[in-house]
Amino acid sequence: MSPSLDDLPLRDDLRGLTPYGAPQAPLPVALNVNENTHPVPEEVADDILDSIARALREVNRYPDREFTQLRESFADYLGHGLTPDRIWAANGSNEVLQHLLQAFAGPGRTALGFGPTYSMYPLLTRATGAQYVAGTRNPDFSLDAESAAEQVAAARPDVVFLCAPNNPTGTPLGLDVIAAVYDATDGIVIVDEAYQEFAPHESPSAVTLLGERERLVVSRTMSKAFAFAGARVGYLAADPALIDALRLVRLPYHLSALTQAAATAALSHSATMLRMVDEIVAQRDRMSATLDALGYRAYESWTNFVLFAGVDDPRATWQALYDRGILIRDVGIPHALRVTAGTEEETTAFLEAMASIDSGV
Amino acid sequence: MSPSLDDLPLRDDLRGLTPYGAPQAPLPVALNVNENTHPVPEEVADDILDSIARALREVNRYPDREFTQLRESFADYLGHGLTPDRIWAANGSNEVLQHLLQAFAGPGRTALGFGPTYSMYPLLTRATGAQYVAGTRNPDFSLDAESAAEQVAAARPDVVFLCAPNNPTGTPLGLDVIAAVYDATDGIVIVDEAYQEFAPHESPSAVTLLGERERLVVSRTMSKAFAFAGARVGYLAADPALIDALRLVRLPYHLSALTQAAATAALSHSATMLRMVDEIVAQRDRMSATLDALGYRAYESWTNFVLFAGVDDPRATWQALYDRGILIRDVGIPHALRVTAGTEEETTAFLEAMASIDSGV
Repeated sequence: MSPSLDDLPLRDDLRGLTPYGAPQAPLPVALNVNENTHPVPEEVADDILDSIARALREVNRYPDREFTQLRESFADYLGHGLTPDRIWAANGSNEVLQHLLQAFAGPGRTALGFGPTYSMYPLLTRATGAQYVAGTRNPDFSLDAESAAEQVAAARPDVVFLCAPNNPTGTPLGLDVIAAVYDATDGIVIVDEAYQEFAPHESPSAVTLLGERERLVVSRTMSKAFAFAGARVGYLAADPALIDALRLVRLPYHLSALTQAAATAALSHSATMLRMVDEIVAQRDRMSATLDALGYRAYESWTNFVLFAGVDDPRATWQALYDRGILIRDVGIPHALRVTAGTEEETTAFLEAMASIDSGV
Repeated sequence: MSPSLDDLPLRDDLRGLTPYGAPQAPLPVALNVNENTHPVPEEVADDILDSIARALREVNRYPDREFTQLRESFADYLGHGLTPDRIWAANGSNEVLQHLLQAFAGPGRTALGFGPTYSMYPLLTRATGAQYVAGTRNPDFSLDAESAAEQVAAARPDVVFLCAPNNPTGTPLGLDVIAAVYDATDGIVIVDEAYQEFAPHESPSAVTLLGERERLVVSRTMSKAFAFAGARVGYLAADPALIDALRLVRLPYHLSALTQAAATAALSHSATMLRMVDEIVAQRDRMSATLDALGYRAYESWTNFVLFAGVDDPRATWQALYDRGILIRDVGIPHALRVTAGTEEETTAFLEAMASIDSGV
């Protein structure tokens, strides 16, 4: 008989767990994992490929451990006078968060997030041996400064996650909440701006708060706005001293030369990529308006997805869409489903399917 | 005054540490970090680039979380009837080892290696919260079955590292040692074959021992034989149940689509890459013979580097080489230095420099 996991000396805290897994089903319209469904434009892809071709000439050598050029590119992209010594990057924003937790959480420490929020926060926290504390939001998923600061002051976590705007609800977060949470804790405050590029242009990033706040971190990803989910590039901005802490926990040479080359080239096309973001925002708003018209209730979204409530039987609606070749996500919020804003065609396909199946409440 | 690391709520166990750092100095002849100093041949690089160009068309989507095609390629490359369900991969063999330690070591557990050995073992172990136990080798750095099994039985570690052949000494390791260590423990036994391709062709890999040993792991890297240090690709072979354990600790989508594409393409040129390995082995043997002739004592090496003893003042010799534009490595072994076998030209430059500076004892 072949051995099973139970026959191996696995850590006790891992026994009985199952691997993270959003379904990867090959459906024609995949709107389930908040990807940017627009391919990288050809002229951008050509530039990326040229950059990778140059990197391949020296791929026999270890990469630049400090990814100097890429950090300069991120600093330029984020603006606000940021310098490369305030930038960090890793293989996806999950690894960025993992580095933060390895440095500032870990055994005997705690991290707090305000649920419902990004499902990886508790998993990443527990994977470093720390405990996760679930804070709460208002019934409309908003988070106000007073409540957030009170919860943080009461729980005294070592790390606070603020997802801004929030996944999976799309909810905006005011800078006043971030400032209040920062003042309520001596721990690290991580503002996860994975979807910030989809917020209104005039809405300020938490990067503007960094200033003298040496415990504040603003994390980002290239997966969404830069259509780079497959390339795995997350990054953050913070005080140079905090960046030094991350150097202690990252694996040496954690960012490959190919990743560095690809990301640097893509960032040089930020204007093109941000125009694509505007198209996605337009589809998102069309999605919300049409869902409302169909009798559902779309929550305000500053992201590339829409959470909509008023779904009698989310499992049935999910399945009806699946049967029509459309994949969306049941995120476990009662009577609600989440859908990614796709291209105009994908969005139309989703909305027509929704119109054809059972209406909302 | 700007904040320092001491002003941040860093974990206590990280205070006072400094980041890992082999020097990255831009010297003409860099033989310090056991890279393959031969660039990837042009026809191989062209194929890799084509493969990446195809991956870029869908880089807006998350990568295949199970890296199916890459695992098939690794199974084919390793041979011995291995199937893809026995393969795992990550961003460099350090991340492969990190996954193993996250699953089977961590807080309250221990890992044992036989020093002097790969300097990352203790760092990776402690980073997961586990304790590292330093076993010992014979004075010539060999490790025999009896001693190894005794040390393991006495220390009762949860994980054992066997570096075969050993870095930084180059020492071969017999399969009998691996089998004896396996029988002496109920823990996980990791055979780190990062340099296996540089061993004599007829010497068997520990892959041949996998069979019914469900706690045995054989890890490899593409950094050395495949001249792919910049691409960050490590992998391992083990029982399918053990692979399941790693799925519990890896970050979702940890291997980028570009990495998967690049590695798969490179593996399809294994014959070309292994011919290059033969050239490096020839330079290594020339290095050892010439160092012996110069009055030093080269240790037997089955790797792409040579540890040589009989150095009066390693720091002075290291500096004298540095001043001649040649970078090698002081690995902290008294009266010894380590040098990577380079191209014929680089090897000649090193040996001529050694002949020109103070002779050995």
